[in-house]
Amino acid sequence: MTRYLLERPHTLISLAFFAKRFESAKSSISEDLGILRRTFMIRGIGVLETLPGAGGGVIFTPGISKKEATEFIEETSKRLVEPSRILPGGYLYLTDLLAEPNLLRTIGRMIATQYSQSSIDVVMTVATKGIPIAQSVASFLNIPFVIVRRDSKITEGSTISVNYASGSSDRIEKMELSKRSLEEGSRVLVVDDFMKGGGTINGMRSLISEFNAIFVGATVFAENIKMDQELRDKNVTSIFKVENIDTNNKIIRIEPGDYLSKTDFSYFE
Amino acid sequence: MTRYLLERPHTLISLAFFAKRFESAKSSISEDLGILRRTFMIRGIGVLETLPGAGGGVIFTPGISKKEATEFIEETSKRLVEPSRILPGGYLYLTDLLAEPNLLRTIGRMIATQYSQSSIDVVMTVATKGIPIAQSVASFLNIPFVIVRRDSKITEGSTISVNYASGSSDRIEKMELSKRSLEEGSRVLVVDDFMKGGGTINGMRSLISEFNAIFVGATVFAENIKMDQELRDKNVTSIFKVENIDTNNKIIRIEPGDYLSKTDFSYFE
Repeated sequence: MTRYLLERPHTLISLAFFAKRFESAKSSISEDLGILRRTFMIRGIGVLETLPGAGGGVIFTPGISKKEATEFIEETSKRLVEPSRILPGGYLYLTDLLAEPNLLRTIGRMIATQYSQSSIDVVMTVATKGIPIAQSVASFLNIPFVIVRRDSKITEGSTISVNYASGSSDRIEKMELSKRSLEEGSRVLVVDDFMKGGGTINGMRSLISEFNAIFVGATVFAENIKMDQELRDKNVTSIFKVENIDTNNKIIRIEPGDYLSKTDFSYFE
Repeated sequence: MTRYLLERPHTLISLAFFAKRFESAKSSISEDLGILRRTFMIRGIGVLETLPGAGGGVIFTPGISKKEATEFIEETSKRLVEPSRILPGGYLYLTDLLAEPNLLRTIGRMIATQYSQSSIDVVMTVATKGIPIAQSVASFLNIPFVIVRRDSKITEGSTISVNYASGSSDRIEKMELSKRSLEEGSRVLVVDDFMKGGGTINGMRSLISEFNAIFVGATVFAENIKMDQELRDKNVTSIFKVENIDTNNKIIRIEPGDYLSKTDFSYFE
């Protein structure tokens, strides 16, 4: 039952279904769900909610507690400041972190917590490094994700494209999305690995408008603090802020982003 | 305990750890593990193995039974032949399928089953559409994944690149991988969404040799059957075979690939 619920978040499952599947009385299913509810709560896995009545059942909403999220940010910050992460040009190497199943799972659960009450229909990201984050968030919200691409591929069918100003390079670039991959009116959550100038996220916002869909918000793994705070999009949340990369002295300064202050954890405490 | 094990596959966990975490006697932990073992077995989730002795504990190996894998292939085949999947040029639209959390989870579990006894260190794929598959397989094997790219990005640091012949286009293309992302001697499993000429997978094999790592095998979601069967790499497994796409009559013919015959399910039955 635990595994069945964990794999089907945000889905109403009737007690009758469990009773049939496990060949048990509804009353003992209900008792077991009571135990699971407390365990999920204590361990910070998420909330198991029972809806009464004929059309009722149980819904599992995965989430993280503020305590666990805070600890994760502290632990991961220590790894982010390892001097070997400094790349030529003052860039930060993140590829290894964003390829660890456990780290991706926690980030997915954190972002899913932030938007757990926002009725998101689809997660959007841009190729390439945002994809693992999008997949993880989508799996916790139990919704599909779409990948915006900078290059057109024949296997996508017809696409809609927008031009956007890449803040980091002052270039105009193009991004596109397969026409059939996003429905009109969909509520879209944007995720990405890194925000530098915010141009990529702006591009995705334009693309969402082109599809007559709704931009609900965006959350990135890390952002570059040097960005003009006046111009910074208030709908964007970051988990980490890169304050400074001192290439000469090999010192990286990382601060927590605004994720903790912008997320309402009350449902999961 | 169920969730803890599900999230840490292929990891030895001592009974003492569980006893401390759940404030229970080792004997009752051991009893509960017995129940979990039977449940995991019956539901086809995977195998829970207990290693005795002082350095012992319990290891969870996720896997799928042949029955569930066969049913998944049958069900998914029905979706693959929907005429609306035909794209101009006789291509097959798969993007929506490879963005569904549940489908990705099952594919990940299937490929993880095939290589569960092969001591894989890392999963490799090429951007873009192979990434969700790689992430899912990596999460079930509890190992990292690496993404080979066709375009160089400054945030990858220095890279090693190879040229390869793209079978579908008769072009020579370049693919590259960040130098620090693959260790010498690593045992590598390659996954991808689609194999047409096999050139991309050959490219990844060359790249693996350049890193002095070991290519263990490759599994793709679908392959194009038109490929010369003599030249076809025997180390590549496919879950689906696209037999024919008749663009005039809007008929797609899909067959199961060689996944079922190449996979040893005996550990998971």
